[in-house]
Amino acid sequence: MRVQLDPGTVALVAGGPGDPDLLTVAACRALEQADVVLYDYLAPDVSGLVRPGTELIAVGKRPRSTDTTSQDSINALLVELAKAGRRVVRLKGGDNYVFGRGGEEWLHCAEAEVPVIVIPGVTSATAAPAFAGIPVTHRTLSQGFTVVSGHAAPGHPSSSLDWRALARSGTTLVLLMGVKNLAAIAAELQAGGLASDTPASIVSSAFGDTAAVVRGTLDTIAALAIEAGIKPPSIVVIGAVAALDLT
Amino acid sequence: MRVQLDPGTVALVAGGPGDPDLLTVAACRALEQADVVLYDYLAPDVSGLVRPGTELIAVGKRPRSTDTTSQDSINALLVELAKAGRRVVRLKGGDNYVFGRGGEEWLHCAEAEVPVIVIPGVTSATAAPAFAGIPVTHRTLSQGFTVVSGHAAPGHPSSSLDWRALARSGTTLVLLMGVKNLAAIAAELQAGGLASDTPASIVSSAFGDTAAVVRGTLDTIAALAIEAGIKPPSIVVIGAVAALDLT
Repeated sequence: MRVQLDPGTVALVAGGPGDPDLLTVAACRALEQADVVLYDYLAPDVSGLVRPGTELIAVGKRPRSTDTTSQDSINALLVELAKAGRRVVRLKGGDNYVFGRGGEEWLHCAEAEVPVIVIPGVTSATAAPAFAGIPVTHRTLSQGFTVVSGHAAPGHPSSSLDWRALARSGTTLVLLMGVKNLAAIAAELQAGGLASDTPASIVSSAFGDTAAVVRGTLDTIAALAIEAGIKPPSIVVIGAVAALDLT
Repeated sequence: MRVQLDPGTVALVAGGPGDPDLLTVAACRALEQADVVLYDYLAPDVSGLVRPGTELIAVGKRPRSTDTTSQDSINALLVELAKAGRRVVRLKGGDNYVFGRGGEEWLHCAEAEVPVIVIPGVTSATAAPAFAGIPVTHRTLSQGFTVVSGHAAPGHPSSSLDWRALARSGTTLVLLMGVKNLAAIAAELQAGGLASDTPASIVSSAFGDTAAVVRGTLDTIAALAIEAGIKPPSIVVIGAVAALDLT
């Protein structure tokens, strides 16, 4: 992957789970070439990876924000900067195409005839569990994993997930943005037939200074999270693998 | 993440989807320190990233192999090399904890009291679709994605997945190792209620010289794959996002 960020181009660059060393080589090359970097709340600190003079703009929506105006203004800014001939990096925490609005930003740029390159990266959905010693798949325990947003509670009109089907899928469940609605989600999964003693773990701020892991079961995890004062960004893993502790 | 690979230690290092530029910075650091690298069939070529004299050992099982002796001998070799005081990197295509047997290797090393470090990376499950212009999640189209192995056909005694539940989950389905059993899987998903005209795409050898993308529907994709001569490694994406082409 020869990364060539031309003037007037936008690069959608995966920032990974927060540690700059979990950026890809390709991401570093894009950052080195950037004139301006629009970064999110959860993106790693890349100030040491850009050229002197590169403009770093925080555009991060806080977790659980539903401010669509904000996304509209990010879209508009990407196009405006590219049209001004800048080399633009859009840096997200995690991967732009995993709950990162990357598709929307791509489409918005394409509509304005702004060329876009995409640099995939490390998603927190697998890396945060790994940080806690949990492989999302493991022979004899799990033949797959499902990554969903817990942003919309089960039954909420904006949710298109079938939580009871997910309960029966046989896959490890990985919830992003799942802390707020965790009690409701755990109840719905149990209503769908997932055993109350299914292992469940929360990984908070993986790779950060305030990293924390809380381990319990589907039945206890929501209360344990409150007790431990767990805050976003946190990732919940539900399934037999959540009992593993390969650390 | 300060990567410090001490003599006698094994590092489970994610190689990413095949392009060396999609290695993480941390992976490169581990490779620079390695005395010996055990790499898989699908791992990227890292011969330019190691010190002169570093031993590179191909231990790759070919895709769809069920040779457990082979995994046993890899486990044994990891321990043997570490016990001899070598700095050992176990390099996988994709991420060691996503169908990479990383958990098994970790446990085997731990049993032998060999220290292990884990460097998560880019999983092909999200990067290969991105290569084909497919975000696995996309607002209004998908609120999650499920990654499963298609290695065991639906109904096979070794399969613990409920494909009909997956059909109803509301998530994008990403099949790894899914080409051989694709017709049976597509039929089972339709039996589970997934519409026959659901978009389905195959991404073959993403980031490689022979990269190919085939687009169709749940009803047509298995035949189209045969027609196009699609071979492993290939990733199948099923769901509304599979119709997107952000390239």
